[in-house]
Amino acid sequence: MKQPSALVALVDALRALPGVGPKSAQRMAYHLMQHDREGAERLGHALLFATEHLRHCERCNTFTEARICDVCSDESRDPTLLAVVETPSDQVMLEQTMTYRGLYFVLMGRLSPLDRIGPKEIHFERLVKRATDGVVKEVVLATNFTNEGEATAHYLAQALKARGLAVTRLARGVPVGGELEYVDAGTIARAMLDRRAI
Amino acid sequence: MKQPSALVALVDALRALPGVGPKSAQRMAYHLMQHDREGAERLGHALLFATEHLRHCERCNTFTEARICDVCSDESRDPTLLAVVETPSDQVMLEQTMTYRGLYFVLMGRLSPLDRIGPKEIHFERLVKRATDGVVKEVVLATNFTNEGEATAHYLAQALKARGLAVTRLARGVPVGGELEYVDAGTIARAMLDRRAI
Repeated sequence: MKQPSALVALVDALRALPGVGPKSAQRMAYHLMQHDREGAERLGHALLFATEHLRHCERCNTFTEARICDVCSDESRDPTLLAVVETPSDQVMLEQTMTYRGLYFVLMGRLSPLDRIGPKEIHFERLVKRATDGVVKEVVLATNFTNEGEATAHYLAQALKARGLAVTRLARGVPVGGELEYVDAGTIARAMLDRRAI
Repeated sequence: MKQPSALVALVDALRALPGVGPKSAQRMAYHLMQHDREGAERLGHALLFATEHLRHCERCNTFTEARICDVCSDESRDPTLLAVVETPSDQVMLEQTMTYRGLYFVLMGRLSPLDRIGPKEIHFERLVKRATDGVVKEVVLATNFTNEGEATAHYLAQALKARGLAVTRLARGVPVGGELEYVDAGTIARAMLDRRAI
């Protein structure tokens, strides 16, 4: 017994989504075809539109529809500061804090040898070129505080300091609203080591 | 800070997929745009093609690109037997057993009042009409042996028996290769009650 080819092709194509195996792909295809054809059509158009129009900013590497993204084109920003983040969502989070007015470089990933993500995949050469343009004075490493994020920060710090740049890292410590009783020991240990005068 | 509109539209459209919330939608969009544009394009085309060409078989309700599906059009099959399954994948499983040569009706779901899936959503009226065409003699209920599947089978059995049809259910018991020590008590209890002469 053969399933209709349009369905087979759809199930197969859905497996391009990260974390979607054959069973979930089938469940998704049935759901869309049975209950949400409008959603399926909208998703189809959104995918084709994004594939065609979305590109990487030539300066900061984030997604944009233009050659240079809005943030990089904003002349009111401080061009001597360059924050390095893993993803565009991290950039959005930093922007929401309203505490940073410099520019960005988006790695679109983190070093992770096990997943075969090395310096090339996080656009290391482009970052170095961007950071050594003569205008940038300080690079703020804002990768995540996970093992991979820390390793990435360490790697980048070595390379950028060797090129004479001031390199900083987001502060670690007890989160705002944190009760010591419920904060993990590693965080408290770090907060103790990095304690500051008030 | 605004994300590019093509990206926002894509993240939003991905939420039509079952079980995909805002965070996974964003992760999927980044992954596709960063690592698999070809896959994204293929998925876009597959969705649009399926939305346009996939329909329900007028007789058995499964997905098909024709008016009547291949199985229903197969004249070598026994038209007096009608198996009722929940999904097209269940039908494929039954076909693979090579033990059934009758026709099918695909509910495309199961009764589940909590999810607001009632008789209308599982096409109850169409099933009754199909089963009472004068040719069908026996309806084999092959819904799953989950709570919802059992409830659906019970509901359909009542309605179809009242219309004078012979109604059967797949046998329950110890699975092939099953060791009693590792089979759950409910299954063994049912196997004991349904024990048969050899």
